[in-house]
Amino acid sequence: MKLFDAAWAPSPRRVRMYLAEKALNVPRVSVDIRGGAHLAADFLDINPRGTLPALQLDDGELILESSAICRFFETLHPEPSLFGANPRDVARIESVLRLVDGEGYAAAVYAFRNGHPRLAGKALPGCWPEVPQIPALVARAGLLWRRFLETLETRLAEHEWIATDRLSYADIAAFVTLEFGGVGRLDMGGAGEGVARWRAAMAARPSAAA
Amino acid sequence: MKLFDAAWAPSPRRVRMYLAEKALNVPRVSVDIRGGAHLAADFLDINPRGTLPALQLDDGELILESSAICRFFETLHPEPSLFGANPRDVARIESVLRLVDGEGYAAAVYAFRNGHPRLAGKALPGCWPEVPQIPALVARAGLLWRRFLETLETRLAEHEWIATDRLSYADIAAFVTLEFGGVGRLDMGGAGEGVARWRAAMAARPSAAA
Repeated sequence: MKLFDAAWAPSPRRVRMYLAEKALNVPRVSVDIRGGAHLAADFLDINPRGTLPALQLDDGELILESSAICRFFETLHPEPSLFGANPRDVARIESVLRLVDGEGYAAAVYAFRNGHPRLAGKALPGCWPEVPQIPALVARAGLLWRRFLETLETRLAEHEWIATDRLSYADIAAFVTLEFGGVGRLDMGGAGEGVARWRAAMAARPSAAA
Repeated sequence: MKLFDAAWAPSPRRVRMYLAEKALNVPRVSVDIRGGAHLAADFLDINPRGTLPALQLDDGELILESSAICRFFETLHPEPSLFGANPRDVARIESVLRLVDGEGYAAAVYAFRNGHPRLAGKALPGCWPEVPQIPALVARAGLLWRRFLETLETRLAEHEWIATDRLSYADIAAFVTLEFGGVGRLDMGGAGEGVARWRAAMAARPSAAA
């Protein structure tokens, strides 16, 4: 199998951190998204959507979406569990993951894609015709981002990890999202001591450099 | 336990269909979202986000997000599997689910929340201060929705079900999203014979009336 990966982008980074925490090695092909290689014919032949990450299995089947790729490996290698090993933990991790994606990640993408001059006409990630930026989405991103930071702080002021009593995929997703928010110049004002402590703990893990 | 449910809204409907397909009975409390009961003090005391569905466990813990609630029950009752019983099916279902949510469901929510006069100032679901509508999101919704219909048609023109060789949670999510798209007056023009055949099969299942 082969993991199509990309430096800097948040979704490929989730998968790299997940694989590092699971101590799994998967052959990688790095696609230069800053140079536009994800939208060139070579990669679109593999993934017509032009999105990363993408996992190609040995028979050619392509698995898209970071959470789907991680769940593929989680089913193959359940230990240590990063998606929960009992009904409550499974639900807690999925619930936090959806809140991270619906508030934090959505906000970061809104702000970055609709506010960055270099992305004019490219307001949706992947392979699309011209998609105009919507400047009003940058303001909406601010609302969602503030709620995301409040959600994190409420939890992390009283708990070590974001969803369960140990590190899970939800921590990885939230951490990568928090880092990505800085790229969209989102205001970190709502993050308090709980977030700062947890963020430092995440940044110190070897997987953060994967 | 108690499932806070709501008529008409798409996310509670996903959970009802899932529970019906699993033949699980869970006590339900219906919250009148059209009457605004989800934003009244009684419900906000239970779920400060004001979102539905919400599953309250017997010790009071609250599980939010439809996919988290369904995964809770899936872990308790793995058979018949609706989230996949092997690594490939798990990944396929999650991948399709993410595409359904990122294209179809996002489009339906964009169009409905930003285009409906009754929702002026309420452009995000749940408990928020005034959130202005962004009319340009209705046009963006059209792009995403067309891609969603193409994704469905490409798959369903050649396969019976949307993610694997049997009905899965991805079919439920896609079907409910397709129905919800009509509410936002999204154009069904991209749906071909594959979608029509599958949609009729889904609509004929007893779970569609749950």
